[in-house]
Amino acid sequence: MATAGDGTVHRTPVEPASVGAVGEFGLIAAVVERLSSGDGVLLGPGDDGAIVAAPDGRVVVTTDVLVEDRHFRRSWSSGTDVGHRAAAQNMADIAAMGARPTALLVGLVTPADLPTQWVLDLADGLNAEAAAAGASVVGGDVTRGDKIVVAVTALGDLTGRGPVTRTGARPGDVVAVTGRLGWSEAGRAVLSRGFRSPRALVAAYQRPQPPYDAGPEASVLGATAMVDVSDGLLQDLGHIAAASGVRIDLDLTALVADQPLVDVGAALGVESAGFVLTGGEDHALVACFPAGVTLPARWRVIGRVTEGSEREPPVVTVAGATWDGPPGWDHFR
Amino acid sequence: MATAGDGTVHRTPVEPASVGAVGEFGLIAAVVERLSSGDGVLLGPGDDGAIVAAPDGRVVVTTDVLVEDRHFRRSWSSGTDVGHRAAAQNMADIAAMGARPTALLVGLVTPADLPTQWVLDLADGLNAEAAAAGASVVGGDVTRGDKIVVAVTALGDLTGRGPVTRTGARPGDVVAVTGRLGWSEAGRAVLSRGFRSPRALVAAYQRPQPPYDAGPEASVLGATAMVDVSDGLLQDLGHIAAASGVRIDLDLTALVADQPLVDVGAALGVESAGFVLTGGEDHALVACFPAGVTLPARWRVIGRVTEGSEREPPVVTVAGATWDGPPGWDHFR
Repeated sequence: MATAGDGTVHRTPVEPASVGAVGEFGLIAAVVERLSSGDGVLLGPGDDGAIVAAPDGRVVVTTDVLVEDRHFRRSWSSGTDVGHRAAAQNMADIAAMGARPTALLVGLVTPADLPTQWVLDLADGLNAEAAAAGASVVGGDVTRGDKIVVAVTALGDLTGRGPVTRTGARPGDVVAVTGRLGWSEAGRAVLSRGFRSPRALVAAYQRPQPPYDAGPEASVLGATAMVDVSDGLLQDLGHIAAASGVRIDLDLTALVADQPLVDVGAALGVESAGFVLTGGEDHALVACFPAGVTLPARWRVIGRVTEGSEREPPVVTVAGATWDGPPGWDHFR
Repeated sequence: MATAGDGTVHRTPVEPASVGAVGEFGLIAAVVERLSSGDGVLLGPGDDGAIVAAPDGRVVVTTDVLVEDRHFRRSWSSGTDVGHRAAAQNMADIAAMGARPTALLVGLVTPADLPTQWVLDLADGLNAEAAAAGASVVGGDVTRGDKIVVAVTALGDLTGRGPVTRTGARPGDVVAVTGRLGWSEAGRAVLSRGFRSPRALVAAYQRPQPPYDAGPEASVLGATAMVDVSDGLLQDLGHIAAASGVRIDLDLTALVADQPLVDVGAALGVESAGFVLTGGEDHALVACFPAGVTLPARWRVIGRVTEGSEREPPVVTVAGATWDGPPGWDHFR
């Protein structure tokens, strides 16, 4: 960002127009000057590559792509909302490995007639969400296409500890979750029916709030396996069950839907338990811990890990039975 | 990749069909088993994030997005070609910082009716190009959209040396290049006119061959500034001139077009010097070095850095004059 000697910030004037009118280099310049860089950024945007500190000597990396009208709609989410959400879902993956998010890169495809302000709002959302998690946007690319595509890559640092993968759950472990379950999906459900409230649920859909710092916390607490809930609790725990070769049984009494979900379920005529068990995109963190661990209050014990066997293949059950709702989200089916 | 006890590789059977028929998880499984992992991959695909060694304690990162019918056409390039090219242009950016490529992540948007084989070919191309540069594909995401989008992020390691940025060029430096100039653009020109030959030029367009190891080599040789030629020699050297506050004058006698470019220029009725000066996407590396440096034979001295001043702003000239051809590539204009 350009600053004069007196500290005044000079923003490049942006035409109140479309990205096509501003051009690639003008758009990049306008975006870059809105970004702030944290301590771990050794070289920010503007060169062939950025340079990020990796003090651990290992770097955790993940990438996720959002496509307009598939993962978001401009009528439901502002550019800022989409920026928050794209950053959040990637940094939640970093946290789910037990790591601390450090940096984001963003590939953007945009129609030429998209208002420039939408892209600046997107940059603001990405920047703010990154900063909230202790990370920085360090680079990107922008090009033209028919629909908006936002491809985010996140980097993270393990700060000296081993990663928490999906493979380490053992029979006898407890399963615990922190963060919201079902709120984003309930918000999506009301938006899809043309409503804008309850506001708290709509906001949860527009800007999920993953508990980033709970990822490294779980690692310190000895978590044996962890995922973030992006496709739904049953489906994502299913990944742990399959990777660890165990069964997981959930306790329905610990999974009572929050009141706003009950209210919306009643209003829409759907079961609120469905939001809790199969709603994704809140990016709660769910982890397995050795039995007897003392967990901080924000971690809620919701189930237990049991033995997998040939007769009882890896699977997630609810009070001993298979849940017969939809299993989660497949981007092609 | 799954291997039986006798070493036989079992590939997941892929339907000879579309990605929509295979589904998200089936497609990911089929892609992942085609990937090979090098030494620096501490945890490959399949968890919330991958883990890559960053022995230097700093990681270089860059991202680039390719959109179908804008950056490639399926009628001009196979899936394998697009994979090679997407990997090459990102890893060339890593090399241009003086770093060694270590890992790639790939975000893919695909229409549901795209043949699954195209995606598998793409994975093969990405994997092969990464391996050729000493890197590995460690993660990705796949989702559905109307047009193919390939968003690649590359990581690199500085192996203990400082980065070579765009800002360090000083008056008196020599400018030298290694790698091809204009071949990719000439290949694109013949393809756009419906021809498939000269084959060497078409191949240069389909699978550029950046001199990856010349990036760290330039760093060892004391390069003061470096970029890869992605948008054209004049435009990319212009970034060094602007960032370093210098002028760069190129020596036309050192920039004689290679014979295939002369032939194609004559056949198409265009100036072959245009290919050399403004053709991008060969991802040659061009760097500034202190005068008196002894360069290995593959580095060709093509110009000299001179003083910038208020009267003579940072600019790139050819034999002292401004080139009046098109300046390069802007993705929106």
